[in-house]
Amino acid sequence: MTILGIDPGLERIGFGVIHREGSRLSVVEYGLLQTPRIALPERLKLVHDGITELLERCKPDAVATERLLFTVNKTTAMDVAKSLGAVLLAVGEAGLNWAEYSPPEVKLSVVGNGAADKRQVTFMVRRLLSLSEDPKPDDVADALAIAITHALRPVRNC
Amino acid sequence: MTILGIDPGLERIGFGVIHREGSRLSVVEYGLLQTPRIALPERLKLVHDGITELLERCKPDAVATERLLFTVNKTTAMDVAKSLGAVLLAVGEAGLNWAEYSPPEVKLSVVGNGAADKRQVTFMVRRLLSLSEDPKPDDVADALAIAITHALRPVRNC
Repeated sequence: MTILGIDPGLERIGFGVIHREGSRLSVVEYGLLQTPRIALPERLKLVHDGITELLERCKPDAVATERLLFTVNKTTAMDVAKSLGAVLLAVGEAGLNWAEYSPPEVKLSVVGNGAADKRQVTFMVRRLLSLSEDPKPDDVADALAIAITHALRPVRNC
Repeated sequence: MTILGIDPGLERIGFGVIHREGSRLSVVEYGLLQTPRIALPERLKLVHDGITELLERCKPDAVATERLLFTVNKTTAMDVAKSLGAVLLAVGEAGLNWAEYSPPEVKLSVVGNGAADKRQVTFMVRRLLSLSEDPKPDDVADALAIAITHALRPVRNC
């Protein structure tokens, strides 16, 4: 099973694609999708087209995104939500399953502590995916952590 | 000049298309785009496809939307922002000009009072567009008011 994890943003979107076979996790690809400060409609087109291209290239079975909270600047949060709309539209066009996880859920799943700091998340992402170096920047480590959270989620048998 | 005004939403999106020739305003079409409570990616696809179809049918020269504020429920505001992302993506794909106006700007433009109530907005929209009846519901009256605001905006000559 291949999972795409996304850390939403407008200026920077972190993405991480992982593969799960049984209990073994491996990394496929990760990186940042960045957009310049152009008019919002054109900027959202870059977001949408970038994610569509990523979906076509990596062919994930599911997409997981971070649930947006209101801890940051309100204007920024609204722009991030608009960008996430363009991301989720690409997911809908591809007909893929989608799930979202809050930051504490991701930390709990990856580190075992819902209040873990970024350093611990990066450390465990590196370890769980057997990476030879720390995934950077934080947006990318977060995206991989979100993908791992989805890969390790309890599957209900009912 | 043809202008599409949009009152953003996820469950209900109000739209209003008006035409301006000199100082004369007339209505082309108005209505509501509604989406059922299905998974968000598929729901955003309905929003995007509905707006794309509207743009193809009415061929506006510009699109104006209401600026999102934080007066409402936060979760609702985030969902409305995601939906607006799908709307603006359609605007970007069509290569159209876009502007946004805050509710007080719209009220000031249409009624002459930034704190006008909904009844006054509906009354002036009906009068300015020479409609034979009140535009309903409020989402639609708001969308027409946003289009009027864009049509009546001061054009800078510099």
